[in-house]
Amino acid sequence: MIAHEQIQYHNQAQAPEHETRLQFIEGVLERKGFNPRQIIEQIRAFQIAIPSWALGTGGTRFGRFSIGGEPRSLEEKIEDVGLIHQLNRSANSISLHIPWDIPKDVPALKQLLTQHGLTIDSVNSNTFQDQKDQIHSYKYGSLCHTENAVRQQAIEHNIQCVEHGKQLDAKVLTVWLADGSNFPGQHHLRKAYQRTAESLADIYSAMPPDWTMLIEYKPYEPNFYSMIIPDWGTSYALCQYVGKNAQVLVDLGHHLPNTNIEQIVGRLMHFGRLGGFHFNGSMYGDDDLTTGSIKPFQLFLIFNELVDGMNDPAVKNPDIAWMIDASHNTKDPIEDLLQSVNGILAAYARALLVDRAALSQAQEENDVVQAEELLRDAFLTDVRPLVAEAMRLDGGAIDPLAAYRAAHIRASLIEKRGKFSTATGL
Amino acid sequence: MIAHEQIQYHNQAQAPEHETRLQFIEGVLERKGFNPRQIIEQIRAFQIAIPSWALGTGGTRFGRFSIGGEPRSLEEKIEDVGLIHQLNRSANSISLHIPWDIPKDVPALKQLLTQHGLTIDSVNSNTFQDQKDQIHSYKYGSLCHTENAVRQQAIEHNIQCVEHGKQLDAKVLTVWLADGSNFPGQHHLRKAYQRTAESLADIYSAMPPDWTMLIEYKPYEPNFYSMIIPDWGTSYALCQYVGKNAQVLVDLGHHLPNTNIEQIVGRLMHFGRLGGFHFNGSMYGDDDLTTGSIKPFQLFLIFNELVDGMNDPAVKNPDIAWMIDASHNTKDPIEDLLQSVNGILAAYARALLVDRAALSQAQEENDVVQAEELLRDAFLTDVRPLVAEAMRLDGGAIDPLAAYRAAHIRASLIEKRGKFSTATGL
Amino acid sequence: MIAHEQIQYHNQAQAPEHETRLQFIEGVLERKGFNPRQIIEQIRAFQIAIPSWALGTGGTRFGRFSIGGEPRSLEEKIEDVGLIHQLNRSANSISLHIPWDIPKDVPALKQLLTQHGLTIDSVNSNTFQDQKDQIHSYKYGSLCHTENAVRQQAIEHNIQCVEHGKQLDAKVLTVWLADGSNFPGQHHLRKAYQRTAESLADIYSAMPPDWTMLIEYKPYEPNFYSMIIPDWGTSYALCQYVGKNAQVLVDLGHHLPNTNIEQIVGRLMHFGRLGGFHFNGSMYGDDDLTTGSIKPFQLFLIFNELVDGMNDPAVKNPDIAWMIDASHNTKDPIEDLLQSVNGILAAYARALLVDRAALSQAQEENDVVQAEELLRDAFLTDVRPLVAEAMRLDGGAIDPLAAYRAAHIRASLIEKRGKFSTATGL
Amino acid sequence: MIAHEQIQYHNQAQAPEHETRLQFIEGVLERKGFNPRQIIEQIRAFQIAIPSWALGTGGTRFGRFSIGGEPRSLEEKIEDVGLIHQLNRSANSISLHIPWDIPKDVPALKQLLTQHGLTIDSVNSNTFQDQKDQIHSYKYGSLCHTENAVRQQAIEHNIQCVEHGKQLDAKVLTVWLADGSNFPGQHHLRKAYQRTAESLADIYSAMPPDWTMLIEYKPYEPNFYSMIIPDWGTSYALCQYVGKNAQVLVDLGHHLPNTNIEQIVGRLMHFGRLGGFHFNGSMYGDDDLTTGSIKPFQLFLIFNELVDGMNDPAVKNPDIAWMIDASHNTKDPIEDLLQSVNGILAAYARALLVDRAALSQAQEENDVVQAEELLRDAFLTDVRPLVAEAMRLDGGAIDPLAAYRAAHIRASLIEKRGKFSTATGL
Repeated sequence: MIAHEQIQYHNQAQAPEHETRLQFIEGVLERKGFNPRQIIEQIRAFQIAIPSWALGTGGTRFGRFSIGGEPRSLEEKIEDVGLIHQLNRSANSISLHIPWDIPKDVPALKQLLTQHGLTIDSVNSNTFQDQKDQIHSYKYGSLCHTENAVRQQAIEHNIQCVEHGKQLDAKVLTVWLADGSNFPGQHHLRKAYQRTAESLADIYSAMPPDWTMLIEYKPYEPNFYSMIIPDWGTSYALCQYVGKNAQVLVDLGHHLPNTNIEQIVGRLMHFGRLGGFHFNGSMYGDDDLTTGSIKPFQLFLIFNELVDGMNDPAVKNPDIAWMIDASHNTKDPIEDLLQSVNGILAAYARALLVDRAALSQAQEENDVVQAEELLRDAFLTDVRPLVAEAMRLDGGAIDPLAAYRAAHIRASLIEKRGKFSTATGL
Repeated sequence: MIAHEQIQYHNQAQAPEHETRLQFIEGVLERKGFNPRQIIEQIRAFQIAIPSWALGTGGTRFGRFSIGGEPRSLEEKIEDVGLIHQLNRSANSISLHIPWDIPKDVPALKQLLTQHGLTIDSVNSNTFQDQKDQIHSYKYGSLCHTENAVRQQAIEHNIQCVEHGKQLDAKVLTVWLADGSNFPGQHHLRKAYQRTAESLADIYSAMPPDWTMLIEYKPYEPNFYSMIIPDWGTSYALCQYVGKNAQVLVDLGHHLPNTNIEQIVGRLMHFGRLGGFHFNGSMYGDDDLTTGSIKPFQLFLIFNELVDGMNDPAVKNPDIAWMIDASHNTKDPIEDLLQSVNGILAAYARALLVDRAALSQAQEENDVVQAEELLRDAFLTDVRPLVAEAMRLDGGAIDPLAAYRAAHIRASLIEKRGKFSTATGL
Repeated sequence: MIAHEQIQYHNQAQAPEHETRLQFIEGVLERKGFNPRQIIEQIRAFQIAIPSWALGTGGTRFGRFSIGGEPRSLEEKIEDVGLIHQLNRSANSISLHIPWDIPKDVPALKQLLTQHGLTIDSVNSNTFQDQKDQIHSYKYGSLCHTENAVRQQAIEHNIQCVEHGKQLDAKVLTVWLADGSNFPGQHHLRKAYQRTAESLADIYSAMPPDWTMLIEYKPYEPNFYSMIIPDWGTSYALCQYVGKNAQVLVDLGHHLPNTNIEQIVGRLMHFGRLGGFHFNGSMYGDDDLTTGSIKPFQLFLIFNELVDGMNDPAVKNPDIAWMIDASHNTKDPIEDLLQSVNGILAAYARALLVDRAALSQAQEENDVVQAEELLRDAFLTDVRPLVAEAMRLDGGAIDPLAAYRAAHIRASLIEKRGKFSTATGL
Repeated sequence: MIAHEQIQYHNQAQAPEHETRLQFIEGVLERKGFNPRQIIEQIRAFQIAIPSWALGTGGTRFGRFSIGGEPRSLEEKIEDVGLIHQLNRSANSISLHIPWDIPKDVPALKQLLTQHGLTIDSVNSNTFQDQKDQIHSYKYGSLCHTENAVRQQAIEHNIQCVEHGKQLDAKVLTVWLADGSNFPGQHHLRKAYQRTAESLADIYSAMPPDWTMLIEYKPYEPNFYSMIIPDWGTSYALCQYVGKNAQVLVDLGHHLPNTNIEQIVGRLMHFGRLGGFHFNGSMYGDDDLTTGSIKPFQLFLIFNELVDGMNDPAVKNPDIAWMIDASHNTKDPIEDLLQSVNGILAAYARALLVDRAALSQAQEENDVVQAEELLRDAFLTDVRPLVAEAMRLDGGAIDPLAAYRAAHIRASLIEKRGKFSTATGL
């Protein structure tokens, strides 16, 4: 953790430039008819969950280059998220991964969470790896497996995840299935789907009624011919099969080349089935890069759909779980996450600046150029002072990344946890 | 048309080699437990619709190079399909495109169809171009348009298509929408979807109860930011909204790079919503090349799903409309279509040769290599003699392409119709 | 044309907000050590060529929806570009397309150009369509054709293009070849390449020594199996074969999905072979949308490479020809071009704001986060006031698009040229 | 190893069906003017190198599911390849990976190789992982690194690889660089390229004059923004820079979506710079699946280019190193490799069956349909009896996969080496 005073001290140096920029943008927005303070309030209210598995160095099948100081336990992961939240005041929850994060001393964990102002937003099951004590292997699938015993084991594991989640007051189970096939013929595609649907229904029926099941889709990797749930259409059909509280989870990196993701987002909200988001950045596939690092305009367009849908009373979509899911192969994980949260908030802020009445009129009149210009105007606005102000008002840093660096936190973590500590995760 | 004797004469020369090859493959299949004559019967029964718009030279936005002798009227299009069917006995129907193929003298057309052994399988509406006498433009969409008057015009046009179809005993309306947007902001994505859904429902309610509406999807072109119906998930959701007799149409060229199409086919059959196929070949996008010319293994895998689903009593999928949809920029259209039908039948024949009991066992046992080998064995079998025999038995040519060339038909068509005739179409 | 007074009058209304924003950004930049006036001067000096073929409504193979008022002659095209240049003072040249733009009255054309402050930057040959009076067809290729007579005709046409260019003081020949094949086997890939290389060498040897030949590449369309020049590697090898003054032209839409274009730009500058640019925007393929409309961050990264290379004395790259190549299917072409020029200048302006010394240091130290943040800081800066000021200082409009709309120019053009005028072009 | 008698015994059962099929295909080919025995001889002569790193179970970043019985040493790897070669007589060499395969007892290794009829074809360097005893990390690159010391270490490692190779009479160094960047700004793209070029030149100058350096390219993974050598154009430019004995290596999985790989193959042969191949199969990216399992027609088209180029005296291309590079996540690695060799030989055999004189004529006459049909005829021919006969004549199995399974070899290996042995590799 970082002392509150350290952040304040750091902010003092940044304050004059920040104030100048903030006043300017507030003036611009006011002249355009916006209430900048209200927008800052909306940014303050936007909170993103940090995945417990993204606090260590990530890697590829070709290797991993550890940074050191990685959290060695759930407690240390909570500390790291606490630090992030202290710096940016926008990351008030954690996504857990079972079995990596099985809670042991629940009361102590709860106290630790409270101390950091954190909650557990969701639990994520893992049936893509074999654990040491596991009876059946997931080599050929889990919820889709041809053998009933394997499916039951995987169902049981998911139900166990819910149990762990309940202990820590989570309300969301995220199911990502690596299930699929590497070669034509390996799977009977229809039967494998049906077995998956039934397994999900079994898990669902074991969930408390106030829980949500999020069903993720991904077109390829780790299977390279077919994935059981390759696209939003399959997730959506499974949700219809499973029940009212099953929702689709959109991971930004889980799409084929050139997919219009914002349209999928709009569709799912229209159907009332957009339940959660895994934010990350990508250029080729599931690259799991920093959110907003590669396609910031696409991220803005996605938030444009989200904001539009969330403000439309005709849309009957539940609250959406905002989560990061990324892997940090070359960056300090904490720096990457600070950048990601910033990228997300900036995209959200810009979407709040779209003049929706004017946009609606341009759309109705098929004034293509005007409609586009209205979006671009919001996108081109430099919203960084608004995001910084939202953080500052909550006691966070004007520039969380700079504050983190100035405090030499990674060096302290390495000193404390060791150069070769490795976090559980990917 | 080609004289029956000409085909017989041509067949005589090919007969000895054909017989040798046929006997060999029959022997191979019998030793593997198949009944080759039954397979030949199944091939004989498989009939594919030829699109009226594919009988002329196609082109791209960069140009078009006419071949000459192209059909100048619906009657001449019927003649061309009649010729194809005479040669291969596997193309007994025509897909019409309205307004290009509005029937005038219905009784004469019916007689002409009967004379050629043809039927009309479906009518295709066109709201992607403006016609001369049209009041409202489709520049900014048709069924999704912001203005009610434009939508009504497009709905009316589709209903008119059904009327034309009824006259010629068709039972299928195919709806492909070019509707979409070229720029972010142009469309309100959710509203545009909802308007489309309601327009489709209006058309559907005007259809006779024994008609089927096929809803096609396409990710891009002619719109390059968003398409109203970009993927199977959207088509599927629209079918659910519209009614029981609405089905998804899969066009092989309408997918993002690397899509596993055979899995989509399996999913849709599982849901009972696979209504039709537009066959063609492609490497990059909607290239509309000869079916089977680029990815013959993928075509086989698609037929593997189809055959598996059609033989599974648990699958409640309606009969599927088999149609070609292609464009012939560098080939003689008739030659291209003869090749395409051959490619389709060969893929179907191979799918019939899959040992499904053994495959099912390998799948249940997760014997990945064996499952794959079973598929590969069917794919690697040279089924050409089976396809040729199916055609021969029905009075067609052993080698339709060679027979067509030997009869110098294109030269006759040019002589009859002119060097610079152009067919309506793309 | 628009009266100078009209622009001034329009600017008056915009001036106060413009001044406020300009002063702010100047202050920000000065505090960061930049000289904003120098950056504005660099923006003023940046001039982009407008393609003569992009002044009319574009279309796809599925149709075209005319806007009316399209230029009916080279003279009217010059007028339209003159208007664009008058509004934004950043489009001082025209790319011609032969045979669509064959100059007739050369002295009058030169006078017209001078009057509008314009020059001809390049001539583009067309061997992808057959012209009426043409002896040989390009259906099966031009410079790659198997028949010598066809190749000679295409070579001759290119030399003719140079002749037309000379008359109007152009110095650049742009060669884009549609040559390719639709099916495996159609081309002997090596021979077709060699014939192309020799044809290009023949054209090159007929060019004046102060001319540049730009060789464009494109992976697909209008051929869908292979293109003679599919990628930068092929263009580069051809340039090496042809001679010193042959350079690669990069069209932003001519890449396979997920290509890192900025890296190609850097490579070509490193090799001293980046000769020209065709700017446009795209999401799927050669969509020819407004520059910067889909991937503004990518456009910035490309300019980041360009600015870096242009300022590096170690780079021996010639001056680069900046050209737009786009198609306007749903927008008013003039509005689209005004947006595109704006998008290009904004990307250029941001690239000028990169702190290159700090970036270089971060790169040397492998400080990934810092290097990225430096780029992002430049990208996130709202540079619109700088671009507007550059235009204003040269007598252009602060907001060219708004000025164009306010003057109701399209309505005048329709009145003058008719509702159904169509420009030559795609 | 498997007893020679076991193979013979196994062949006896397969012989009758094999003979029948062989006689048939020989007859077909003779009637078409081919000499089937000569083709069989060509297949016999075609030998493929097996990568030492592909004999264990592969995995993804998400996990690995071991099969057991994996080779624990270079000696055991040689045994496994020896077994493969004994079964199919078409895999007479091994690609080594340093440091995983550093030879210790060289004379003993040479004897073991001789005993199995094997040679070492190439050595592969590894600068994508950090080894335990390594001074500098490759986290931020190796041959491209900003620090001279890191580059020198990587150069030294490559030279060391050559030294190890010399001991075992290899003549080829394969360089695959994971070097690249994950984020815009991380690399100075031009400088990173230049450093790489110079490092490669240093390694090259240390190689014996009869050695070849193969330079591999890959568009992404493990870096997800830019790779130092992303495409064939970069490999080619580096080869030109480095020297005459530097050649491009094509790995089938290292291309962006929809790349026409066979055209690249033809280009490189035309330039005399195609030095080696890494065979594998893929659907999405570098999936490293069984060769021929996903796109068998593409594999045939690649071999069509290869055979055409190898038989053309005008082509001055060196002999090509044929190597497999794959990863086996769900299959028994030995079964996968047996399938892959079969897939490669089948593609080669079909390419030998192309009637090149007729194809050339069709190409010259632009008879697109005929040219395509000639290729398809070769592709559709069931060449499996020819491949089987080539293996049988050399003492191998008619059906190597079936013979391997019948001999229960995996079970023996597990018994001998243990259930949880793991091979070095990916």
